[in-house]
Amino acid sequence: MNGDVVTMDKLVSLCKRRGFAFLSSEIYGGLGSSYDYGHYGVLLKNNIKAQWWRAMLQERDDILALDSAIIQHPKTWEASGHVQSFTDPLIDCRTCKLRFRADKLEEAQCGRKPSKHPGETPECDLTAPRDFNLMFETTIGPVKEAGSAVYLRPETAQGIFLNFKHYLQFGRKKPPFGIAQIGKSFRNEITTGNFIFRTREFEQMEMEFFVPPADADHWFEHWLEQRPAWFEGLGIRPDHLRLRAHDQEELSHYSSATSDLEYLHPFGWTELEGIANRGDFDLKQHATYSGQKLEYVDSASGERYVPYVIEPALGVDRAMLAFLADAYDEDEIEGERRTVLRLHPLLAPVKVAVLPLVRKDGQPELAREVYLLLREVLQAEYDEGGAIGRRYRRQDEIGTPWAVTIDHQTLEDRTVTVRDRDSLAQVRAPIEELAREFERRLREPWRSPKLGG
Amino acid sequence: MNGDVVTMDKLVSLCKRRGFAFLSSEIYGGLGSSYDYGHYGVLLKNNIKAQWWRAMLQERDDILALDSAIIQHPKTWEASGHVQSFTDPLIDCRTCKLRFRADKLEEAQCGRKPSKHPGETPECDLTAPRDFNLMFETTIGPVKEAGSAVYLRPETAQGIFLNFKHYLQFGRKKPPFGIAQIGKSFRNEITTGNFIFRTREFEQMEMEFFVPPADADHWFEHWLEQRPAWFEGLGIRPDHLRLRAHDQEELSHYSSATSDLEYLHPFGWTELEGIANRGDFDLKQHATYSGQKLEYVDSASGERYVPYVIEPALGVDRAMLAFLADAYDEDEIEGERRTVLRLHPLLAPVKVAVLPLVRKDGQPELAREVYLLLREVLQAEYDEGGAIGRRYRRQDEIGTPWAVTIDHQTLEDRTVTVRDRDSLAQVRAPIEELAREFERRLREPWRSPKLGG
Repeated sequence: MNGDVVTMDKLVSLCKRRGFAFLSSEIYGGLGSSYDYGHYGVLLKNNIKAQWWRAMLQERDDILALDSAIIQHPKTWEASGHVQSFTDPLIDCRTCKLRFRADKLEEAQCGRKPSKHPGETPECDLTAPRDFNLMFETTIGPVKEAGSAVYLRPETAQGIFLNFKHYLQFGRKKPPFGIAQIGKSFRNEITTGNFIFRTREFEQMEMEFFVPPADADHWFEHWLEQRPAWFEGLGIRPDHLRLRAHDQEELSHYSSATSDLEYLHPFGWTELEGIANRGDFDLKQHATYSGQKLEYVDSASGERYVPYVIEPALGVDRAMLAFLADAYDEDEIEGERRTVLRLHPLLAPVKVAVLPLVRKDGQPELAREVYLLLREVLQAEYDEGGAIGRRYRRQDEIGTPWAVTIDHQTLEDRTVTVRDRDSLAQVRAPIEELAREFERRLREPWRSPKLGG
Repeated sequence: MNGDVVTMDKLVSLCKRRGFAFLSSEIYGGLGSSYDYGHYGVLLKNNIKAQWWRAMLQERDDILALDSAIIQHPKTWEASGHVQSFTDPLIDCRTCKLRFRADKLEEAQCGRKPSKHPGETPECDLTAPRDFNLMFETTIGPVKEAGSAVYLRPETAQGIFLNFKHYLQFGRKKPPFGIAQIGKSFRNEITTGNFIFRTREFEQMEMEFFVPPADADHWFEHWLEQRPAWFEGLGIRPDHLRLRAHDQEELSHYSSATSDLEYLHPFGWTELEGIANRGDFDLKQHATYSGQKLEYVDSASGERYVPYVIEPALGVDRAMLAFLADAYDEDEIEGERRTVLRLHPLLAPVKVAVLPLVRKDGQPELAREVYLLLREVLQAEYDEGGAIGRRYRRQDEIGTPWAVTIDHQTLEDRTVTVRDRDSLAQVRAPIEELAREFERRLREPWRSPKLGG
């Protein structure tokens, strides 16, 4: 299936079978479209986040990190416009008692049993649309009556704007500079779906890049180039990515230009990341609501201005889905069908599997020794259960790029075979060189075998 | 101040000055005791979490990772006992209109101005205590009336118990094995305080280790040994750590044995991490409430049992506070006072600073070249602003273990000086060997200079 797009069924099934992600609270029947991430899912997500931090913090020196609280002062959301306009128009059906998004009626699923009610919503008796806010509300303080109403943040971005002044001070930065954050956000969506693509609780990676207003177009273009390159560098096929500029009606109230970086998901082209020119909207709003000056003053020239903000923002969960979908492959080895995740080695949950060929003759003991050596430097896994072919398959399915096999020759000369997940090539190498060799390979540029050539 | 304990004032002041952590939503007057983490704070927390994951996942093969949702099915909290008993007894004062914890009245601060009201709570007119639940409640679904009441999790542990069955299946594990998780939890505490020590929103690192009931004591002892060793390996002084066993009255309803790993905080000995034998309480409760069998069945012997659970659980924020407090030091260099964080190099936010001695003669250009080389392999910082002594001080204060200085000799022979934060020794080294040298140093065992000897 090279070049093709995997189906969601296959992807969801692999995720559940190998514990990447599965329905949350399942023993209690689940909770809407809420998912938990299992062992390999956590390792994969950690790797994605580490690569994002690396691109934002380690490989540049114009971006600083932030981790702001999920529950912020409620004035934040008045200033940002969320209290007033972060709403969905909802419609109730008097027949089936369900609630639908007025702007997505064609996607609605009727709640009445098909046998009794073969048509869909057109047969429903609908109310006029009403606006409902998508923010989760809770109260802080010991009792509801006395506590203050607060919200779970619907985006991490506002925490960045609130701290802009701090960063001018202790960050010793002047525009252009950015503030980056990874963290959970919450939206009480009525329409969720497509597995981990749209959920009510999700993890964002957002970066707000503050620039002199005159340079905003330049930096918008810069991030339009950088972000697809990040995905491609981590193995996403370029023909599965495209930039789509929002037209005038589609733009948010705060934005003068936005492009979606879209990915060819199993369910079609949809947003993977948004890159927006937010102008000076947010800083000016918070300046008005807080009464504080949120501007940059050049101490040498005396020049002062409210910076414009360029924002590349994406979801960890959504990025994980794209990396998995793009890596998913099936092929045949010796007449047997194989499922393989062709993940970039830096993203792969496990870097190397250590396998004794047989479970005797001292091979397991020596394999444990090799495993202990390797796990000092990377995420390794030891497996002695079942036929060797089956153990290779298990590792292929979770995207482990390399497998080290200990055989009878290893006991004689301390060399092992190193098998490559993609080329299936097996080369012999001395045990003592393995750690350094895998570290070297991890630093090499990598190209998906799906790209051919 | 070697061997002494830093004051909270100094620590909080450093955290704010250098942007490790500061009051959340400050432009709106803050939000109770809620904190945001700035650039160096995020880097430090990321390093702490990476070391915990390393100890749990990479260096062992009996623990798997999980990332479960913050909003879980509400039955979870009925089964766990939180709905019924996760409460604080609160007392209202009819005089000053404030609310206090009945069991911590002696710590209460009266709301009336001291001038008008010189005494404290004894002069207040108190109501009888009433129980208030500490869980944050919100509603899922589009409108309050129609939505279901759900809670923000007060601990990550329950998400692990809910998924126990999954891990037996796809994890191919049998007891003893553990499931580890890092994530945010929320408690609507009435008494918060001591900076980031006790906040309403906090990040936990919890691991539930499932064992055959007969082995529970053995594994409890195992984790009582492992956890202090983890802190000591990362530089915490052993005389600042102690284990304190809970007596019978102090034990939670679910626990048959709990020990607090206490740290000598600036405000006294207090809990840093809890290590508990939770028995089979949680699995049995969830089995009852869900109607599912939550037990281990040995497929070979047919033996079946509900595992006991040993839980080491700590807060990321609290761990960060301890690492900062323990690393904080002041000394004198050439008659000038210096603040220095003697952090373990693996935890240090920045590993190496690259500094041109002067801002001319081609030194900045060459220093940039060295910086670009080093940031490929570790978190580096380039700084050319101000006198060299001042730049060293800046790095000392955030705990950067090494500084590379480019001087006139560098332009001749491509060697630099490498300065050590603690010993202040400066050695010359060739540019081309720096990356490998720092990587080597990062892997070396490290001993805090505060330990002497």
